[in-house]
Amino acid sequence: MSAPDLGQIITGFDLWHLALPVVSRRDHGIGAVEGSCEIVVLRLSAESGAEGFGEASPWSVFTGSPEATYAALDRYIRPHVLGRRVCDRAAIMADAASSVAHCSEAKAALETALLDLTGHIAGVPVWALLGGKCRDAIPLSVSLANPDWDADLALIDRIKADGVGIVKLKAGFAEATFDTMRLESLAQNHSDLDVRVDFNQGLAPFEAMSRVRDVAAFHPTFIEQPVRAHHFDLMRDIRAAIDVPLLADESVFGPEDMTRAIRESICDGVSIKIMKSGGPTRAQTVAKMAGAAGLSAYGGDMFEAGLAHLAGTHMIAATPEITLGCEFYQARYYLAEDILETPFPCDGGAVQVPDGPGLGIRPDMAKVQFYAKAKA
Amino acid sequence: MSAPDLGQIITGFDLWHLALPVVSRRDHGIGAVEGSCEIVVLRLSAESGAEGFGEASPWSVFTGSPEATYAALDRYIRPHVLGRRVCDRAAIMADAASSVAHCSEAKAALETALLDLTGHIAGVPVWALLGGKCRDAIPLSVSLANPDWDADLALIDRIKADGVGIVKLKAGFAEATFDTMRLESLAQNHSDLDVRVDFNQGLAPFEAMSRVRDVAAFHPTFIEQPVRAHHFDLMRDIRAAIDVPLLADESVFGPEDMTRAIRESICDGVSIKIMKSGGPTRAQTVAKMAGAAGLSAYGGDMFEAGLAHLAGTHMIAATPEITLGCEFYQARYYLAEDILETPFPCDGGAVQVPDGPGLGIRPDMAKVQFYAKAKA
Repeated sequence: MSAPDLGQIITGFDLWHLALPVVSRRDHGIGAVEGSCEIVVLRLSAESGAEGFGEASPWSVFTGSPEATYAALDRYIRPHVLGRRVCDRAAIMADAASSVAHCSEAKAALETALLDLTGHIAGVPVWALLGGKCRDAIPLSVSLANPDWDADLALIDRIKADGVGIVKLKAGFAEATFDTMRLESLAQNHSDLDVRVDFNQGLAPFEAMSRVRDVAAFHPTFIEQPVRAHHFDLMRDIRAAIDVPLLADESVFGPEDMTRAIRESICDGVSIKIMKSGGPTRAQTVAKMAGAAGLSAYGGDMFEAGLAHLAGTHMIAATPEITLGCEFYQARYYLAEDILETPFPCDGGAVQVPDGPGLGIRPDMAKVQFYAKAKA
Repeated sequence: MSAPDLGQIITGFDLWHLALPVVSRRDHGIGAVEGSCEIVVLRLSAESGAEGFGEASPWSVFTGSPEATYAALDRYIRPHVLGRRVCDRAAIMADAASSVAHCSEAKAALETALLDLTGHIAGVPVWALLGGKCRDAIPLSVSLANPDWDADLALIDRIKADGVGIVKLKAGFAEATFDTMRLESLAQNHSDLDVRVDFNQGLAPFEAMSRVRDVAAFHPTFIEQPVRAHHFDLMRDIRAAIDVPLLADESVFGPEDMTRAIRESICDGVSIKIMKSGGPTRAQTVAKMAGAAGLSAYGGDMFEAGLAHLAGTHMIAATPEITLGCEFYQARYYLAEDILETPFPCDGGAVQVPDGPGLGIRPDMAKVQFYAKAKA
């Protein structure tokens, strides 16, 4: 067998902006999602014809708009990629990082596609390029965010039948009584579930402490991001006031935020997402910083399709510090149809880490074309 | 005279994405600008036919891309504006703020257009809506960022002939010797100028202290943002190490950052820009917070045309805390052609505050159409 040619040039850079229909409305502290989930798919091609795919999964009120992500890749990042060698991933990512402000999802899509391309050329899975495996499966958490609680109860029956044992209740988008009612319902009818609560920044500082204490009385596994991202002081005070572990999500995008979160003791753990950090490598850095400081880490997601789930799966497979499972449920339970050639691998309540080359599964290009609202 | 109808409905929301040719290349610590300056112009119309204009002036490596700003206004902000009453500016701005992440320039354009519209309906200048005037003219600072120093020396001769007495040297984008050479040249040949130095985040932490000390030895009026925005610790250490006042720019976008900047003592003053803060009102809040904490404030800009300069001018005219002048020089000294009906008002080295209704000067719609690369 000849050595794989990692020195070959990247010659193709194609983009699709997709709108993927979803099955229900979902409410969160910072905003609702309804109708469709919009993502951007990037395909890189190399001289040999090898291809690598990546997904950017923006959320307009959290990381930025799909239009911003699409323009970031199309105009600002593309010139730093075409004509470069596949092997120069670190250098390409450094150039991309400073090419445009924000747009961390675009940078995540780029690194994912570079990893997938490298993996296909070298014949190794992406996890092998990120440190090697520490687990073959990742416990799956499914989020409950439907304003119709009966619909979420039906979802719980469905996911339990699939072996899922973790749920994350989205709170703080309605009256406190709605949160309490749902937590009581879970405690009474589903005490076997591992329950986490996520406020998605939804609480005003004025009310935050009392509402968090009310939720903490139900002893969830953790409580996530009750207040706006920049309220580090209040996160620290809430953390000190409750025994339930407090997780930071919107307060920590990348390693720069994590430095400050650790120093200011704002959390007991952190939700790690490649769409926030700007790619798997920076996500791993956040996880390792958390581990070094004695904090736990959870594998979060945005409104993603299966391609982004795969990137997160490979990253978590190679990151021992992420011990609280993952929430890569959307491809299976939220999208009307995913874009992968074969279903995103979940079994027995856990995501199964693929062992094939690159990400292990390719997008179905017919679906990508079908759901595309723009192409470049 | 009948009372002006501020309760009338906003019925029109039109956007133009412009590319305005510039006269030279400009280098900065975080990136260069060459060829053209891209802005987005917003026009709001009310039932009576009254119109208000605003400009978003993004910088892709600082606040975000023009595409992101355009999409923010077109898709995410538009639904919060059409059908609302002109008088409900504060409520509209609150909705716009949470409608999309980042895109502070889009929000600045919206507030500017709402103020211009209100001013035209009520027959009062925008400064009257922002607190009333504290000054009739604002000393003008012109930035020196040309990699060709001889070209900047020619610019200095031109601006001095126009009465300008303040320059800001953009440093940190090349070797330290280039900065030293230019500072020596200014000290020897233009000792009458008020010289400020701006690194635009250009220094690596490793080299920052020594390079800042070298510049401080020339006793500029202030030194601005030597290191990346998130390095609050290093800003604080540099501030403590030098006697020259240290200004924060990229470290402080809005009041949330200012809270932290004050508490962590990272600066002696702050560069205030409506494009960072998300509009004149939030810019005033930053200025007043600075004043309360004993910090100075400077009126900065992005790569702006005259419409954005006008918004900044009215804001500074009504904000006593901004005492270090402004840098609204681009419409006159950097763009090949501005978009206003009459020239942006500078005289005797100072910006002259307009006293007509609204912003006081309207854009020339023929120029807006001519330079438009997109319209919505």
